[in-house]
Amino acid sequence: MKPTLKRIAILGSTGSIGQQTLDIVRANTDKLQVEVLTAQNNADLLIEQALAFEPNAVVVGEEKYAYVKEALQKHDIKVYTGADALCQVVQMETVDMVLAAIVGFAGLRSTIAAIEAGKSIALANKETLVVAGELVTSLAKEKGVNIYPVDSEHSAIFQCLAGEFHNKIEKIYLTASGGPFRGKDSKFLSTVTKADALKHPNWSMGAKITIDSATMMNKGLEIIEAGWLFGLKPEQIDVIIHPQSIIHSLVQFQDGSLKAQMGLPDMKLPIQYALFYPQRVASSFKRFDFAAYPSLTFEKADTATFPSISLAYEAMRKGGNMPCILNAANEIAVSSFLNDEIGFIEIPKLVEHCMNKVSHITKPTLQQYIDSDAEARKVAQSLTKKKIHS
Amino acid sequence: MKPTLKRIAILGSTGSIGQQTLDIVRANTDKLQVEVLTAQNNADLLIEQALAFEPNAVVVGEEKYAYVKEALQKHDIKVYTGADALCQVVQMETVDMVLAAIVGFAGLRSTIAAIEAGKSIALANKETLVVAGELVTSLAKEKGVNIYPVDSEHSAIFQCLAGEFHNKIEKIYLTASGGPFRGKDSKFLSTVTKADALKHPNWSMGAKITIDSATMMNKGLEIIEAGWLFGLKPEQIDVIIHPQSIIHSLVQFQDGSLKAQMGLPDMKLPIQYALFYPQRVASSFKRFDFAAYPSLTFEKADTATFPSISLAYEAMRKGGNMPCILNAANEIAVSSFLNDEIGFIEIPKLVEHCMNKVSHITKPTLQQYIDSDAEARKVAQSLTKKKIHS
Repeated sequence: MKPTLKRIAILGSTGSIGQQTLDIVRANTDKLQVEVLTAQNNADLLIEQALAFEPNAVVVGEEKYAYVKEALQKHDIKVYTGADALCQVVQMETVDMVLAAIVGFAGLRSTIAAIEAGKSIALANKETLVVAGELVTSLAKEKGVNIYPVDSEHSAIFQCLAGEFHNKIEKIYLTASGGPFRGKDSKFLSTVTKADALKHPNWSMGAKITIDSATMMNKGLEIIEAGWLFGLKPEQIDVIIHPQSIIHSLVQFQDGSLKAQMGLPDMKLPIQYALFYPQRVASSFKRFDFAAYPSLTFEKADTATFPSISLAYEAMRKGGNMPCILNAANEIAVSSFLNDEIGFIEIPKLVEHCMNKVSHITKPTLQQYIDSDAEARKVAQSLTKKKIHS
Repeated sequence: MKPTLKRIAILGSTGSIGQQTLDIVRANTDKLQVEVLTAQNNADLLIEQALAFEPNAVVVGEEKYAYVKEALQKHDIKVYTGADALCQVVQMETVDMVLAAIVGFAGLRSTIAAIEAGKSIALANKETLVVAGELVTSLAKEKGVNIYPVDSEHSAIFQCLAGEFHNKIEKIYLTASGGPFRGKDSKFLSTVTKADALKHPNWSMGAKITIDSATMMNKGLEIIEAGWLFGLKPEQIDVIIHPQSIIHSLVQFQDGSLKAQMGLPDMKLPIQYALFYPQRVASSFKRFDFAAYPSLTFEKADTATFPSISLAYEAMRKGGNMPCILNAANEIAVSSFLNDEIGFIEIPKLVEHCMNKVSHITKPTLQQYIDSDAEARKVAQSLTKKKIHS
């Protein structure tokens, strides 16, 4: 083991972010070393990755444990399973940084475990901050842990803040492509299919995030996340529709100056920035060319047609477990939509119903977050069922 | 005198930049104190400014010396005249920072004097670096002096580099409005009048700079200036036409990420940034609003119609005294145009002729810069006369 290498644990290595992270490792073997890989179901890809990157340990979902164990038994790679194992591997002494890319609420516990062990966090899991932002950011502060955002919008803000942390932020603009249904009305949205919603114009992402992008709940979650990451109030966060996805977000300082981070839509850049911050490592990523983008356009977000954004602001203002409820209900709603159980426009309706039904807790403990999450899911599921049986 | 105040000398206080600087002082009397004001001809405004800001000293052109001396005699304000006096006042112990806003070659000596005395420089005078960039930047390095750019484009680059000075710049984009004749051809340009050329679409500036903006020599000078300020080669500097003047310039780093600084066209922002760097002081400057700019557009610069840009790249590549020759010839050409002695399209032609006629010196001394400047002016003037008499 070369001591100058940054040793990373990639949680969710078979997902879109995980795979792109491994591409970056491949291009920077002199700077990065993979210590841990984890996946839930995609055992074959996990095995392939493990054989290529030779991590110290892998963690896989229970159903695939025996299969992966068998495949890796002749190699010096430990194989574990279970949520506890996930929390333990990120705390290993040989891990310097944890790239948290497990999608959804499932990513929360392991991220907290990594922060508790003082590991730097490259955060691709939105839910960690959406669900338990107060808890997570105060823990990170206590442990002196830096959280580097991987989301392109938050990375853009973070890049704009380099050298400016002493300066007051007046507001930020989170840019949004508007998704595949930008410019459409509610009537149109009532007819859209799963296939329509899965076609994102600019970004290639996992199914959950792609649907969130179509409902604009993705932007809603990002608003809440940005609040925690950068210490902002709801009124300091604005959403601006920018269909070309070239300006990834902007910061406006108290002198009125705006800084923007720009580039072609490519998640590798923010991942790499998080891995190497404050260094910018040379890359062969395709460069932006103004000739291909003679016009960058901007529109106000249509919150009447896409109520998810307003729901997120509301959850942020109410605080406590409300963003957790919003997130849990949304996860169920999206999964129900992907299972053809509910229609597209019912996704935000279901979220709103849950926000009204599950009781609000102002200062939840981790256990109360977990309970709120479970309750919101139960309520959301029952609403889905009702709809199906009605 | 309160010790926490930053004490500034404003060279060229009656010009556009000088006046705007005083507006900033007016809004920040708890942070800034005017030590020196200087002007060439506008005696009445200089007197008014001196009475309002009570500087330690003022310097004025010889013709107005007696008049200003008389007006200020009952006040505790010293009045000087002459180039030597200009160099001496900037070196006074009570001056912390020199805002160098004298237009043209005339600003060079006093800026060098300020650097020699170890004063921080807020640089609004392009020519200092265009003419003698090598000499000035190496002197600044030797004296540990920081040069803060005031030009909106260079300020934008400088703002984008905050927190990034350790990272390699791949390239920069200097944005250009394109001036009043964007999209026109040479035939059209052969018909334009002084009045046409003095109408800039976005910025309100002095006459010299406004004409430079119409010929795009302004951008040419900025290319050379950027090379010295940020240590860039000609091929690392690109010009992109952006008619709205909202993105003030961009930096592309070696990871492919672009950072842009944006805002409404208002010179007060870059002036204030230079005065207070690295602090951003709260301002009441009008804020940018995406609703007013639904589209930001970009075009390639038309160097066939506007050859000044190509001339500047050529001067930069040749180096030595060539940018000095370009600058001197341009000053004469613009002034001849403003005196109705030559036509608009003859401005770059005259510059090109001078670049071919005046002998190239690879490593000039300050005296050789001064001589090259004088020679280029003489050659330019003789070409102007020839034209008039032909």
